Amino acid sequence: MNVNFAERAHNHNFKLDPIVRSLLDTDFYKLLMLQFIWKNFPAVHVTSEIRNRTTKVRLAERISASALRDQMEHVRELHYRKSELVWLAGNTFYGTRQIFEPAFLDWLENHHRLSEYEVHEQDGQLAIHFSGLWTEVTMWEVYSLAIVSELKTRAALAELNELELDVLYARAKTRLWDKIELLRKVPGLRLSDFGTRRRHSFLWQEYCVQALAAGLNSNPEDVRMRGTSNTALAYKHNLEAIGTNAHELPMVMAALASRGSDEELRHSQYRVLELWQRSYGGELLIMLPDTFGTTQFLDGAPQFAARWTGERVDSKDPFVAGDEYIGWLMKRGEDPRGKRLIASDGLDADVIARLHEYFNRRIRFSAGWGTLLTNDFRGCHPRGENSFEPVSLVCKITSADGVSAVKLSDNPGKAFGPVELVERYRRVFGSPALEETPILV
Amino acid sequence: MNVNFAERAHNHNFKLDPIVRSLLDTDFYKLLMLQFIWKNFPAVHVTSEIRNRTTKVRLAERISASALRDQMEHVRELHYRKSELVWLAGNTFYGTRQIFEPAFLDWLENHHRLSEYEVHEQDGQLAIHFSGLWTEVTMWEVYSLAIVSELKTRAALAELNELELDVLYARAKTRLWDKIELLRKVPGLRLSDFGTRRRHSFLWQEYCVQALAAGLNSNPEDVRMRGTSNTALAYKHNLEAIGTNAHELPMVMAALASRGSDEELRHSQYRVLELWQRSYGGELLIMLPDTFGTTQFLDGAPQFAARWTGERVDSKDPFVAGDEYIGWLMKRGEDPRGKRLIASDGLDADVIARLHEYFNRRIRFSAGWGTLLTNDFRGCHPRGENSFEPVSLVCKITSADGVSAVKLSDNPGKAFGPVELVERYRRVFGSPALEETPILV
Repeated sequence: MNVNFAERAHNHNFKLDPIVRSLLDTDFYKLLMLQFIWKNFPAVHVTSEIRNRTTKVRLAERISASALRDQMEHVRELHYRKSELVWLAGNTFYGTRQIFEPAFLDWLENHHRLSEYEVHEQDGQLAIHFSGLWTEVTMWEVYSLAIVSELKTRAALAELNELELDVLYARAKTRLWDKIELLRKVPGLRLSDFGTRRRHSFLWQEYCVQALAAGLNSNPEDVRMRGTSNTALAYKHNLEAIGTNAHELPMVMAALASRGSDEELRHSQYRVLELWQRSYGGELLIMLPDTFGTTQFLDGAPQFAARWTGERVDSKDPFVAGDEYIGWLMKRGEDPRGKRLIASDGLDADVIARLHEYFNRRIRFSAGWGTLLTNDFRGCHPRGENSFEPVSLVCKITSADGVSAVKLSDNPGKAFGPVELVERYRRVFGSPALEETPILV
Repeated sequence: MNVNFAERAHNHNFKLDPIVRSLLDTDFYKLLMLQFIWKNFPAVHVTSEIRNRTTKVRLAERISASALRDQMEHVRELHYRKSELVWLAGNTFYGTRQIFEPAFLDWLENHHRLSEYEVHEQDGQLAIHFSGLWTEVTMWEVYSLAIVSELKTRAALAELNELELDVLYARAKTRLWDKIELLRKVPGLRLSDFGTRRRHSFLWQEYCVQALAAGLNSNPEDVRMRGTSNTALAYKHNLEAIGTNAHELPMVMAALASRGSDEELRHSQYRVLELWQRSYGGELLIMLPDTFGTTQFLDGAPQFAARWTGERVDSKDPFVAGDEYIGWLMKRGEDPRGKRLIASDGLDADVIARLHEYFNRRIRFSAGWGTLLTNDFRGCHPRGENSFEPVSLVCKITSADGVSAVKLSDNPGKAFGPVELVERYRRVFGSPALEETPILV
């Protein structure tokens, strides 16, 4: 009787179902880094590429290059909406107003664009290369990863009938709520959603974020879900936007410095801290020490780094890395109980609970919960297939002003860059003594 | 943009959200029994009542008597639709056309009505009593049980917010699909939905039935979901309508016979078989031997009973009862491998699989899967409460033409009737030697 004729027609009419529908649908740290780049490196050119570390999954056989281009072109046509810019200008981030300068927001509104890119197939994989000004290339990272991830999801969804789709989501929801129940038993816990780039889909990330907030924040004295790295979701659902910076900054600064002496190269990792602190004053001072190995970073770090608010652990075992950071702080005369330790690599609910327990009262621990929050469909496929399992997609800077970029990290399996350069970097920064850790996501 | 204004207004407009929306929303055996009663006992008066055997659940505190009356009045206002009557007349049931006589269908269309009833509260329970011609009272059983069951569900749903509702159903669906996956591993299995009366809700029963059909019937050589007892769902989804008869028949016939000698009383249980066979010819010959105890029933049964198609086991351990039936058939010179054994009491997926395994190649086993198919929400409540757990609701004939009715069954915990009459029946039929079995549903 009550057929909505217009809606029904519309549902069969659309030419594209866009994955990224707002330029805010990115990690908040990309915006902070964009302002940092715009201010300090407006003329640097970079290249970057998307790489699938899960090589057994042949992405080009699941995702068509033209569907990918259609989605990417859609993002290039987006503009910041007035209401989004007003929010960026007026909202409080990390307790501070006007983190974004008026001149930056004006540039964002009127001059910001996304770079050119190339997509082609290679050995069953999709090769995606970006090239342009750093300010034009950097934002592609999260948009393009989220697009590839969701296109892969859509290809797998297309193989299921209506009831099977229902089973899939019922199982994933049951899984999510079991995790939330586990985390409800851990008072004082702090976590945030860090799952934008490898999410199952935007709508599923949104569901996960809302479920976490509803499940973990019922007691105003013990708000455990602190926010989301996804700026669009923070904006839409009145949550804190979370995140500060990433490996991209030390990688580019090292590449630029690598034209000089080994000492200039080695020092570039601290130059990032100096410039960041100068750009953001006393705010957002979370360091990410693992780009070229955490231990050498801490050993050689200037004293001001010990006064920063905290550290994010990414490629090292977070139990080990947290202990190392606590020990370092004490050696540098700082009280770790006032500092923050953020773990963000391959976390799931059980390990988050154990990390909280382990660091409780020793340092202020928070979890940045990524792929296993927003894309845990393991074992949920109604016919037992693995087409929804996340792949380890990364987008990495490959060069800056023509010089190749390198990342060593604490996990040799995550080392990145041309072999001869990796060797130079290892000579300069030292080799991590750690064993390779299997990479799940 | 595409708001359906009419629908939105309608969703806030309705005066009643009816639970029973078609007179076919009942177990198929009620229609078969109704024709049997219409033909053989058109002038008998009976009383019946609804009883909650799960006394710790105080139903009157969850369900308002007036909401119950509104739902029941709605059913009394329903009529068989033309299309429903055409289907009853023209469809093939159990491989036979015209199981329903034209005169019966004409009566159903023009003269059938539901009896008066009374609802009142008593010790925290809802007391519901029916009184009238047997043809007017009998159909209340399934309608009223389904209504009470769904009103209880609605009361519990009203305590949940939107996300909690989503968790609840995700968990129940995950549970259901886990059961279906278990049953997919059992080739040759046969089962039907018997879960109308104690269902969570009509829509959930419909979901369960569709899920079972989709999950178990993909191989046309091995159709495991044989149908549903729910006539409306069979009609709507092109499934077999399943069921033959229930304890109501021997109970009423025993009550009428109990005005005479003990021998007349004892013989009444076989009189049901004679009349049923006369009413339905060679079809639908499934006997239900446990009304006054299975062992005495089989011991004294006339030889023609051994030629019937099969037996339904309700109150006895189905492993034991099946063995007993197989032994009896062999003693009577019948090959059990051509006979059907139907279990229908408190079954769940694991026991269905074990029963199939146990009786495989010895007798044709089928499961009538009831409450634990259509109302298994144990442990699904998002706050760990038990408000969705099914209660053991029954509707029983209490008297026929003024004489109290009695049921002994194989489970002393299910004995029913005035104490002095139960004693006479036990003297006439013998007492089952079985121990009381806990009643789950």
